[in-house]
Amino acid sequence: MGRRLLIIGGDAAGMSAASQALRVARREGRDLDVVALERTDHVSYSQCGVPYWIAGDVESGDALVARTAREHRAAGIDLRLGAEAVGVDLDRGEVVARVDGRDERIGFDDVLVATGAEPLLPSWAADVPGAGPVKTLDDGQRWRAVLAAGDGPEPRCALVVGGGYVGVETAEAFARRGLRTTLVTRSPEPMANSLEPHMGALVRAGLERLGVEVVTGVEVGGVESRAGQVHAACVGGQEYHADVVALALGVVPRVGLLTDAGLGVGSHGGLVPEATGRLQDGVWAAGDCCEVWDRVLQTHWYTPLGTHANKLGRVAGTNLGGGTARFAGSVGTAITRAGDVEVARTGVLPSWAHARGWDVESVVLESTTAAGYMPEAEPMTITVTGERGTGRLLGAQVVGGRGAGKRVDVVAMALWAGLTAADVAEADLAYCPPFSPVWDPVAIACRKLAERL
Amino acid sequence: MGRRLLIIGGDAAGMSAASQALRVARREGRDLDVVALERTDHVSYSQCGVPYWIAGDVESGDALVARTAREHRAAGIDLRLGAEAVGVDLDRGEVVARVDGRDERIGFDDVLVATGAEPLLPSWAADVPGAGPVKTLDDGQRWRAVLAAGDGPEPRCALVVGGGYVGVETAEAFARRGLRTTLVTRSPEPMANSLEPHMGALVRAGLERLGVEVVTGVEVGGVESRAGQVHAACVGGQEYHADVVALALGVVPRVGLLTDAGLGVGSHGGLVPEATGRLQDGVWAAGDCCEVWDRVLQTHWYTPLGTHANKLGRVAGTNLGGGTARFAGSVGTAITRAGDVEVARTGVLPSWAHARGWDVESVVLESTTAAGYMPEAEPMTITVTGERGTGRLLGAQVVGGRGAGKRVDVVAMALWAGLTAADVAEADLAYCPPFSPVWDPVAIACRKLAERL
Repeated sequence: MGRRLLIIGGDAAGMSAASQALRVARREGRDLDVVALERTDHVSYSQCGVPYWIAGDVESGDALVARTAREHRAAGIDLRLGAEAVGVDLDRGEVVARVDGRDERIGFDDVLVATGAEPLLPSWAADVPGAGPVKTLDDGQRWRAVLAAGDGPEPRCALVVGGGYVGVETAEAFARRGLRTTLVTRSPEPMANSLEPHMGALVRAGLERLGVEVVTGVEVGGVESRAGQVHAACVGGQEYHADVVALALGVVPRVGLLTDAGLGVGSHGGLVPEATGRLQDGVWAAGDCCEVWDRVLQTHWYTPLGTHANKLGRVAGTNLGGGTARFAGSVGTAITRAGDVEVARTGVLPSWAHARGWDVESVVLESTTAAGYMPEAEPMTITVTGERGTGRLLGAQVVGGRGAGKRVDVVAMALWAGLTAADVAEADLAYCPPFSPVWDPVAIACRKLAERL
Repeated sequence: MGRRLLIIGGDAAGMSAASQALRVARREGRDLDVVALERTDHVSYSQCGVPYWIAGDVESGDALVARTAREHRAAGIDLRLGAEAVGVDLDRGEVVARVDGRDERIGFDDVLVATGAEPLLPSWAADVPGAGPVKTLDDGQRWRAVLAAGDGPEPRCALVVGGGYVGVETAEAFARRGLRTTLVTRSPEPMANSLEPHMGALVRAGLERLGVEVVTGVEVGGVESRAGQVHAACVGGQEYHADVVALALGVVPRVGLLTDAGLGVGSHGGLVPEATGRLQDGVWAAGDCCEVWDRVLQTHWYTPLGTHANKLGRVAGTNLGGGTARFAGSVGTAITRAGDVEVARTGVLPSWAHARGWDVESVVLESTTAAGYMPEAEPMTITVTGERGTGRLLGAQVVGGRGAGKRVDVVAMALWAGLTAADVAEADLAYCPPFSPVWDPVAIACRKLAERL
């Protein structure tokens, strides 16, 4: 029998690591035994797709599965579903796995923890039917069932609590399903952790055009149930009727298994593996239970995204299989949609920079997604931020019509390469009337920024 | 009276230079007198928009004008329309301008030549009504009139000669106007100067879905006229009925004014100014009459695009106004549309690299514009090229559905920064199901390429 790698958690990071470790071990001629434990019945699916499943863009949860349990097993992974790791004994190299209520000890040479993140749930939501998170495939299944209303009255009013990515996406999903939807956030505008308020206001406008009522600056105090169902919610002293309540208050890294075993966490509460994925001899981690190295901030940051989970899982798998790889880090790029607007960001916000004592300057540019005279032209607002003195580009936020969002990748690449705003100002970006004004808006924004830096 | 700057040519490069020179001179407190000669009646308009005007996306040619003659004059430019420069005397610092058939000598301290490019026209097209180029605003006006058929039978069949950007865009325009359209190119596939044949085939497919018949590998031998109108064209021995013939065989730099005055041209036949825009003391050039510095090829190349014309015009204007600027060059980025496909490219083609003795490798990736399970997902094919040994990324070609084209900017930025394929493979690009698979296709293509390099 070969060296045993035990993977805890069967979604993006865990199964990327498992697959890659086996692949590399075979290439390197190593004998590797991979066991993967997943507490649910689902593996390797797209959590980011769940709101679109709820919206009806995707008909079946199966569509969100990138690789089935059967496929993983066929590839040689000993995948155990419904198996929850409830303890780890690092000295003895054993994990306690609970299956059908019974505990089993499983030995390992290396363990990779990919336990993901846990949704934050307000205390008032405990055991309230019709109130729940929007995260896992099981959550998606539950929401689909609730909205199909097979066993009760069809819900007509929805409340979404939280104005981050998942909140915005869920509000879009509910509104597109025809529910009268209210989104509540305690911040002044949606997406306050990702965008400045003047950009968040454009997201709010996108939601409002979709018919979503956006209530800002207040929290949900609690919900009132009737006949075992949500009936209304108290929001900033006002009562809002709601048949269902989606909880999208963010997530925290799920690290208990390793902190119970004595390992520490970083300043954001996540595990902090090396760039290889290694925490200490024989102990590895990847995915949303980890903090992520941010190349712009030059520190670890909590950025629970599928992109990093897949990448770090693959890196850890390569190393565990006998190869060599390092996670190159994040620059904080993210994108979503709010009705008819695309929303994207990369790098740091001015407030993050101020907190570090960096002297920064921003420029806001109003432009269009195509040449102004083309029917494709839709409004697009770009905010770019850079550092005075060095001229270094530090971040960008983009909100606009179709074609706006992925433009953020231009700045993401510039941050990746450590370029200045002046470098991007002169860059050779693609132009043709259906796609851009002749002076690319990202480049113009950077030119104006460079003039100020 | 201040120093006199004489601009020859009033489109993108010339008027960018004129405006910028005045702006900078005022800022610097210099006394500058700017005279601009334009032989037509139109200034500062988007040539790239002409096919979309013909298509009907734009109702009036005025919409294509970025800045009117009136606005330029109000800004202080002595703009003379219908004034053609027919000779330049560099020793005496004078240009001979022909206005209404009369010649006038105009003195200058500095002259900036922005005479643009000339469409290549086959000999058989001379004086054939209904056959003409698709370049200037006047061309656009003529095509609009021809298609509106105010003074004759409505044209029903169109032939487009040439498979480059303008040919493809014009074929799209005609097809969308309801004409039975045939595009003829002597190359094996459309866009042979920009794309490899396997990518050009996807452009052809896009045109065909639009109803355009694409005839490759042959030339138009000539046209047959009847009653003073085009009636048919001989294409590879076959006769094609055609009421109108658009000539899109490419352009050559219009340099006669300066070569007559003894100045030389580069290996592509264009003027070769320094990065400042200066050709020699007192003589400057910008726009499509110039070759453009290519950062990837590390040589000058003929890349007649509005982006470079605007940029080099602005750079020259800054220097002529008393400031300091240098043109940072091109990486060969371009984009267009062929029916339902977006087409983009940047950097070098393998054949260009081979011609330079570079050892290159390419990877072709079939992917989608969004997560495969999303309704937005459309096919997208990416080809990336890099250099063996160094791992340096050298170019990319993208053809695919909505959202595909501008992804080329990721590679354009990477080329701009001189990154390797491995760098882009790991980059932090924006992901959300409506916009991308979780592993960004550009990054995956670069990963596969890096593995081969």
